[in-house]
Amino acid sequence: MSFEPVCEADVTQWSGTADVLVVGFGGAGACAAIEAADGGAAVVVFEAASASGGSTALSSAEIYLGGGTRIQRAVGYDDSVDDVYGYLMASNGPQADAVKVRAYAEGGAEHLEWLMSLGVPFKESELKERAMMALTDDCLLYTGSEKAWPYVDEFKPAPRGHNLEVEGDNGGPLLIKILTEQVAARGVDVHFESRALRLVVDRFGPGARVIGLVVREDMEERYYRATKGVVLCAGGFIMNEAMVAQYCPQFLSGKTFIGNPNDTGSGIQMAQCVGAKAINMHEGFLSVPYYPPASLTHGIFVNGQGQRFINEDAYHGRIGSYLAQQTYPVYLIVGVDDYGNYEQESWLQAPIAGTGESLEELVSELSIPGDQLLATVSRYNEDARRGDDTLFHKRAPWLKPLEGALVALDCTPGAGAFFPCFTLGGLDTTLDGCVLSCSDAVISGLYAAGRTACGVPRRGDGYASGSSVGDATFSGRRAGRAAAGASA
Amino acid sequence: MSFEPVCEADVTQWSGTADVLVVGFGGAGACAAIEAADGGAAVVVFEAASASGGSTALSSAEIYLGGGTRIQRAVGYDDSVDDVYGYLMASNGPQADAVKVRAYAEGGAEHLEWLMSLGVPFKESELKERAMMALTDDCLLYTGSEKAWPYVDEFKPAPRGHNLEVEGDNGGPLLIKILTEQVAARGVDVHFESRALRLVVDRFGPGARVIGLVVREDMEERYYRATKGVVLCAGGFIMNEAMVAQYCPQFLSGKTFIGNPNDTGSGIQMAQCVGAKAINMHEGFLSVPYYPPASLTHGIFVNGQGQRFINEDAYHGRIGSYLAQQTYPVYLIVGVDDYGNYEQESWLQAPIAGTGESLEELVSELSIPGDQLLATVSRYNEDARRGDDTLFHKRAPWLKPLEGALVALDCTPGAGAFFPCFTLGGLDTTLDGCVLSCSDAVISGLYAAGRTACGVPRRGDGYASGSSVGDATFSGRRAGRAAAGASA
Repeated sequence: MSFEPVCEADVTQWSGTADVLVVGFGGAGACAAIEAADGGAAVVVFEAASASGGSTALSSAEIYLGGGTRIQRAVGYDDSVDDVYGYLMASNGPQADAVKVRAYAEGGAEHLEWLMSLGVPFKESELKERAMMALTDDCLLYTGSEKAWPYVDEFKPAPRGHNLEVEGDNGGPLLIKILTEQVAARGVDVHFESRALRLVVDRFGPGARVIGLVVREDMEERYYRATKGVVLCAGGFIMNEAMVAQYCPQFLSGKTFIGNPNDTGSGIQMAQCVGAKAINMHEGFLSVPYYPPASLTHGIFVNGQGQRFINEDAYHGRIGSYLAQQTYPVYLIVGVDDYGNYEQESWLQAPIAGTGESLEELVSELSIPGDQLLATVSRYNEDARRGDDTLFHKRAPWLKPLEGALVALDCTPGAGAFFPCFTLGGLDTTLDGCVLSCSDAVISGLYAAGRTACGVPRRGDGYASGSSVGDATFSGRRAGRAAAGASA
Repeated sequence: MSFEPVCEADVTQWSGTADVLVVGFGGAGACAAIEAADGGAAVVVFEAASASGGSTALSSAEIYLGGGTRIQRAVGYDDSVDDVYGYLMASNGPQADAVKVRAYAEGGAEHLEWLMSLGVPFKESELKERAMMALTDDCLLYTGSEKAWPYVDEFKPAPRGHNLEVEGDNGGPLLIKILTEQVAARGVDVHFESRALRLVVDRFGPGARVIGLVVREDMEERYYRATKGVVLCAGGFIMNEAMVAQYCPQFLSGKTFIGNPNDTGSGIQMAQCVGAKAINMHEGFLSVPYYPPASLTHGIFVNGQGQRFINEDAYHGRIGSYLAQQTYPVYLIVGVDDYGNYEQESWLQAPIAGTGESLEELVSELSIPGDQLLATVSRYNEDARRGDDTLFHKRAPWLKPLEGALVALDCTPGAGAFFPCFTLGGLDTTLDGCVLSCSDAVISGLYAAGRTACGVPRRGDGYASGSSVGDATFSGRRAGRAAAGASA
């Protein structure tokens, strides 16, 4: 499929004109449309699916915001902009974008206010347990590695995941429902089942300006003109196997691509075909979703050498990224008591590799050096008894000697466990979403936000849940505002 | 600096015309020029420096070739195409390019014959010691991890580094001297101190053809026309700090960029500005050049947890890539006897972190969990006595208990040791060097080879010395031949 642009001179008929054309009606596109409309622009949104939502609607939408949001203050957390900034720079380093991270840290509290002003509900409460997502209507939860080593030693932790006030894992759908209503309330023209195919430029060559879009809708190709700008909010590329094979082939084996079917990278490719630069294309989120039940955090991960490799109280995505670098097999070893309701509650669904009434019995069932595993567990148990994990600094509440009956779960990618992943690379953009060319010049008339752009979250080992929805809505707003203000 | 192309319509005067224009006179450019000339083309080479050489001239040029080369057979190695292919696919996986690797494996013996036909001398001999490079005039040496775990279990090893018959570390200069003479013998027009600035296209937009080049020489900008093609052999981008920061920022801290000063990525950027796709841009070679003296291989690397993390008999680049992923500090612990002439012979120049008449004494001087280090060494010593490294499978000849007086070298990046690195990302090309666009279409008239392209070597942890010079000369030849055969 070719995403090569069309030149204005070759456009025979325009099917419509607006100030701002938005491609994609997920979290980023919705926020871009709202802000562009509020900036006085006439806006059209083109969505390939039959309804709004994108990958945001599929997510838990634990919107990652900090620096003293209304909810953080109400619940009693004194989170600072500097701690948010420091944590996000460290966890996304060395490829972190300091300008974007600073704005995101400084703008977190305001962004939450804006969402609330649209009617997005957040309860002044906190979910205190270690959870992948809130299944209650509580708001704040820790969704990153803020309380875990090494970050906790450098930056004061605070929960920054903001779960919507809704029971069950329904944050994404509710967020999209409200944003969709807000888009409609502004009279934005929304075209569903309308797939953006190519950009239209005023001319070919250096200095070209993006002035419109070719879309396929009602079984024909149509041309729409943008007097101010086109905003690409078309998601990432995890559903494009050729792009994954080219840019992040580490995700091909034993992992599950998550997102909506239109995360095909078409926004990235359309922009590349007018000279845009894609960056960080090798990076992505890769999770080993091993809690709930949180009690499994009492266990230890060991690699093919029978060694631990991480503090098991880190965020599941951080553990997933480290896990993928190990010599396989990788096992999670946990006591039977802590195994608990694993089979009912777990997303991971890792098969059982072995069980034993004692460690020695378990070891005999596993395919790793048994004597090293015995030494690893022995040392871990000593540390656990003292309440001090001297190797990996798992916090004391999660330290518990591995004794009695034990279970080993096979967490080797490809062995049956669920390893969800999605991409974190995209178009290089300015803070306001202007798309940059391979010469680092702004491409006039072209904007991008959400996972079509490379935003705040940039590393799998530093990812925090809610940072992609947070970044998508935040960057969508900025791009929408900028596009609306751009001169015709 | 803008690398945006110029349109033919804007060219007021051509300063010259040739069938094939080659940008860069390193190993790739020289081979492209020779093959293009032998294919009947009139060729002009533009080189930014005052002489030929590029990064090839700075290298040891241990040309990585196998599958039964004349020298391999003479020395007694029965290397097969399938073993070369298998090893290169595994060591460069998952981003290995099967088509390029297959051609490189199948064409290895012929490529050596071709080099010898030009007068490049290789002796029918082998250097048997573990070495970073041959300082004798011997030919064959192991320059990758072929004999090391995990590859040795899957692919029959053979030495594939082909060192030129010259004393000292002078393979690169001699290779370039001979190639330069061969270029001159063919009447190729060579412009030195001539910097390629931009490509010329027949028109802007989809389907544009590259028809020439803008160069700065004799203090003015000149336009040269190519009737058949432009071949970009302008090196990688390790000397462009902005590009390194954007694409492979992991190399910014504590590492040393190696290459020639013109490895600025200009070839990649010129091509990107006509729609070319760059891939694998995050990857690079990163070495911990800790041998010579080879005796240090008896030691063990330990990370901030006091654990080993690799078989220390692997290639130095593989160890470097793993080392960079560890929790710091990283130490190399070695017996005083094996320390030997380290201070005189070593490229690494890692500072001494501690010494001790016993392990216990050494441990007390280091900043890692001492009890874990004691356990790690104790276990290693047991394995060494048995001649079986049950954790990381270092081969028996390198297993030796760490006893008596010991030294710890601080191999933490930034602590003073030498960590050379260069890039392995570049333009996506076909086997014949045709540059591919972001739509995966061939860009007419444009070719790339060597580190301007993304070729056979694609991963730092799988790199083998001589594979970049091998790939550059091999891919340069193919691109030169293809360009010469391209229709005008």
